[in-house]
Amino acid sequence: MENLKKQVGIKAAEFVKSGMIVGLGTGSTAAFFVEELGRRVREEKLEIIGVTTSNVTSEQAKALGIPLRSIDEVDHVDLTVDGADEIDAQLNGIKGGGAALLMEKIVATYSKDYIWIVDESKLSEKLGSFMVPVEVIPYGAEQIFRKFEAAGYAPTWRLTDTAEKLLTDMHHWIIDLHISKISEPEELARTLDLTVGVVEHGLFNNMVKKVIVAGADGIKIIEK
Amino acid sequence: MENLKKQVGIKAAEFVKSGMIVGLGTGSTAAFFVEELGRRVREEKLEIIGVTTSNVTSEQAKALGIPLRSIDEVDHVDLTVDGADEIDAQLNGIKGGGAALLMEKIVATYSKDYIWIVDESKLSEKLGSFMVPVEVIPYGAEQIFRKFEAAGYAPTWRLTDTAEKLLTDMHHWIIDLHISKISEPEELARTLDLTVGVVEHGLFNNMVKKVIVAGADGIKIIEK
Repeated sequence: MENLKKQVGIKAAEFVKSGMIVGLGTGSTAAFFVEELGRRVREEKLEIIGVTTSNVTSEQAKALGIPLRSIDEVDHVDLTVDGADEIDAQLNGIKGGGAALLMEKIVATYSKDYIWIVDESKLSEKLGSFMVPVEVIPYGAEQIFRKFEAAGYAPTWRLTDTAEKLLTDMHHWIIDLHISKISEPEELARTLDLTVGVVEHGLFNNMVKKVIVAGADGIKIIEK
Repeated sequence: MENLKKQVGIKAAEFVKSGMIVGLGTGSTAAFFVEELGRRVREEKLEIIGVTTSNVTSEQAKALGIPLRSIDEVDHVDLTVDGADEIDAQLNGIKGGGAALLMEKIVATYSKDYIWIVDESKLSEKLGSFMVPVEVIPYGAEQIFRKFEAAGYAPTWRLTDTAEKLLTDMHHWIIDLHISKISEPEELARTLDLTVGVVEHGLFNNMVKKVIVAGADGIKIIEK
């Protein structure tokens, strides 16, 4: 599995050219992409500016010598590469397993191109195998949790190793929804978007046109 | 003007009965309502639990001896009373002049009854005399600002007295939109709700059924 993640990370880096402003995803697969960019910056004099999607990725990129800017210091992003937790046949996806969904969605929103890199275990006909993370304002979060329970979303709190509620980089909490089959991801996204106290959610619908997948048969690119 | 604000604050307190869980609004008009409740708690043994909508109101209520709970520690709120910056003929409103719109909207969402108290200068045929505050995630906020500029919303940053960007109680920034005539407040609300990085906005559409207004001719109650 680590090997598949590394393969797609390196493959995605081929889409990066000198002069680009590049969105750097978060998570174990994206980390291989960032590592490969770092190698090319050092060894091949690749000239890029990175825009990161989490404090963790900022640390990694800094250590690798990739110059960084905040999303607010650039005019746009040329290409963002990130992992995904689950992807359906229409290339809608669920992200946020690494708790960075808010910054990831913000950077993706301002990116001209956006590519997901995954191993083939992440592909589903319909979303729902993976939980849907929802980032919420702490004030009123218990009320939202009860609302999700009543709606049958089987919510759970995202916790730290010491069983405290995990605080995101942007100072919110995460509630994970366990909905086994999401037949209408756009409908669910809209419901969540219109819920007072919800900051953002892990449904990334209609955001990517290209997914790089690594599997037993090698690497394939799915395009929409 | 102060006198009108005080009149509606005291009038609204008449709707509060012992045993109620009461949402306490924020701002100069709501402060008179909270003050009157404090008086009744002390002098008339009124027994209520307050749920506040800002740190400022929490301080005021504590000083007055009103017992407080967080919105997450109560099952529901019986009645919330708050001010508003502008109210149209359909009782849609704009709030957030005091930068507390997020907590105000959260508490209002879980309130069985919700009353606004204003002086008559706040009534308009259509919204737009007052700016629409939008609470945003700091990461990416400059991008949202530019998007609002491009959309013709004439955005400005909410600043502190020392000209820094004002940080809300929930750790976000506020962008104020200056749209002179808002013909479709629900359309604008939806656009803002679906903008990545927008946490909440000051359009409170279809949320109140009762407004208490003080004017030269005395107090009147508008109901929908």
